[in-house]
Amino acid sequence: MLSREESAGRVARLQQKLSDGGLDGALLVHPIDVYYFSGTRQNAVLWVPTLGAPLLLVRKSLVRAQQESSFAEARPFPPSKEFSAVLPKQAQKIGLTFDVLPVAQYNFFVKLLPGREFVDLSAINRELRAVKSDWELALMRQSGAKLCSVYEQVPSFLKAGMREIDLAAEFESRMRQSGGEGYVRMRAFNQELFIGLAVAGDGACAPGFFDGAVTGQGLSPASPHGASARRIEAGMPVLLDYVGVFNGYLVDMTRMFVIGTLDSRLQRAFDVSLAIQQHLVANLKPGSICAELFAQAQVMAEAADLVGHFMGPPGENAKFVGHGVGLELDEFPVLAQGFNMPLIAGQTIAIEPKFVFPGLGAIGIENTWAVTEKGGEKITNMPDALIRL
Amino acid sequence: MLSREESAGRVARLQQKLSDGGLDGALLVHPIDVYYFSGTRQNAVLWVPTLGAPLLLVRKSLVRAQQESSFAEARPFPPSKEFSAVLPKQAQKIGLTFDVLPVAQYNFFVKLLPGREFVDLSAINRELRAVKSDWELALMRQSGAKLCSVYEQVPSFLKAGMREIDLAAEFESRMRQSGGEGYVRMRAFNQELFIGLAVAGDGACAPGFFDGAVTGQGLSPASPHGASARRIEAGMPVLLDYVGVFNGYLVDMTRMFVIGTLDSRLQRAFDVSLAIQQHLVANLKPGSICAELFAQAQVMAEAADLVGHFMGPPGENAKFVGHGVGLELDEFPVLAQGFNMPLIAGQTIAIEPKFVFPGLGAIGIENTWAVTEKGGEKITNMPDALIRL
Repeated sequence: MLSREESAGRVARLQQKLSDGGLDGALLVHPIDVYYFSGTRQNAVLWVPTLGAPLLLVRKSLVRAQQESSFAEARPFPPSKEFSAVLPKQAQKIGLTFDVLPVAQYNFFVKLLPGREFVDLSAINRELRAVKSDWELALMRQSGAKLCSVYEQVPSFLKAGMREIDLAAEFESRMRQSGGEGYVRMRAFNQELFIGLAVAGDGACAPGFFDGAVTGQGLSPASPHGASARRIEAGMPVLLDYVGVFNGYLVDMTRMFVIGTLDSRLQRAFDVSLAIQQHLVANLKPGSICAELFAQAQVMAEAADLVGHFMGPPGENAKFVGHGVGLELDEFPVLAQGFNMPLIAGQTIAIEPKFVFPGLGAIGIENTWAVTEKGGEKITNMPDALIRL
Repeated sequence: MLSREESAGRVARLQQKLSDGGLDGALLVHPIDVYYFSGTRQNAVLWVPTLGAPLLLVRKSLVRAQQESSFAEARPFPPSKEFSAVLPKQAQKIGLTFDVLPVAQYNFFVKLLPGREFVDLSAINRELRAVKSDWELALMRQSGAKLCSVYEQVPSFLKAGMREIDLAAEFESRMRQSGGEGYVRMRAFNQELFIGLAVAGDGACAPGFFDGAVTGQGLSPASPHGASARRIEAGMPVLLDYVGVFNGYLVDMTRMFVIGTLDSRLQRAFDVSLAIQQHLVANLKPGSICAELFAQAQVMAEAADLVGHFMGPPGENAKFVGHGVGLELDEFPVLAQGFNMPLIAGQTIAIEPKFVFPGLGAIGIENTWAVTEKGGEKITNMPDALIRL
């Protein structure tokens, strides 16, 4: 449960940003944003005035919102005609998250609130959410420990001859038994992920819609992502890339497995991925520029003569090497070209240098880290080495 | 794989509706809509002119889109400056799905296509998608058979003393091994569902955001839905409500289990739910009015003196008794107040009369049906009876 103090701190930080931006308030409509500030993920809208107390307007369930919310006041969502009167008259310039709000919903609020001006709150909201409080970091460490405990069980059930989907089923089942909530929330419009990837050999090399290094063949063109019905054989690199979701907080990690011996070209690429990770993590400090970290990773891949395989199959390479994680999988910051912002202490980032070799398989490492003055703190605290069975 | 013929039929039906609506074309941007018409769920935008051939513009992966798509032409998404020239000049009035398109994306397309007029395509798109072709119905029957085969295994692993989440983990694992894809797509802005619900006794009675009869306690306020860590004991009604997703097509069903003997009040409510189902299914014929079917279900609940418990805990009752399913969980039509449209042959609807008794548990039935001239065809073809262990 979100404490009043924690919630008040978040609201105060938003209010400061609203004030800096010349806004009179924010109308938060996306459930995960509402949860972040209020502590309840009910069907509700949260009004945060630049000055004054927030107000939670609940469609369903008011009872549960009142039980869970850290705010003093949670009210029923008012009838349409009364909505405008709930917000103060002087609140003229109102922020909405244009990145996720559908046009039909936007038109609905424009109609409910005549004469007000709406501006995009997306960047403010994402920048705010990117920096985790101590309370959030503690939860993310818990998520990391739980996900690691599932990864540690893999040698007990990974066998030659099983299908990728059987491996996925077993891993996911154990994650659920550990309290995994499953909801991998993503903010980007056309992205989605069902928990994670269990892919082996060439099955890991299919190109795809997913904005990541590895997509997987999936089970059909309708779900072209993750495990397929292909069988895992000895010598294949087995890549498990799963998102652990516990108490709403996501951590993202990848470990590599092989039954028998790995191809020497893949082993070499794996060593390069560890070297890239080591370099990035040493620089995961406040002030480091995201785009420069990505550029440095690319230079290291180039120096190893592997840049064509870096972050995707040749010709389909993803243009990043790390992404923010927290309540959503695609948070700020992104270690990518064009991201010229400096890192801030408390940001949490999944770093995932990976290489894809069509015909052979995908290989690499991924851990979730917190940005600290001393460099990255490992949230997914388990050895990185290839696990040989 | 979607055949050219099937795809061409879907495009032709959309073009007829565009023509009827006075539109010059539709720009489909939502991945599931793009999949429906093109057969590929890549990161792409689909232009369907009212007259002429559709054009798939692919961000990622073009290679995979070309392998999977039923269209002759799939091109790379053009640079922003060239986008407008890709669409014919005479295409002035263009449909976009305002129900799912975020404002930021809308603004992006408005900027790319200066001088064009955009209108909401949501209703046309949803009405079209609601009526399934024979090809789709065959796939949905396959999904139904696969989901039923998982339900049939439940007596082998449901035991007193296990936690709701352990039951969920086991069910979901078997569903994945059967080829379950997991992605339960929903169109509504603030809704989400991680595969389904495994809830027992009072655990099934928690109120919640979900627009359904049963929410469940979930594992935390961040994921307040579905299984919790509570233990299942003898005498508790155990409700399993899962969505089977195979080849992209969803079927939705609920079965009830009890270890030992069920409370007589719950048994009686279960019998009423079966009677409501029987009445609705007999009337699941072209021409029946959705709102009237819901009203009739409510009258039957009232006659049994159970209306306060119908479709939710007292005071939090959901206002429907059935919902369209297909590629998404919340398709048209909805058996709800205000839905005054007649049923059409080929629509597929999950009907779920349920009752919730705080302190005792939730009980009811759910099956997915196709609308036919003879009444509902059962897609989730398994006996409805309470399963006693």
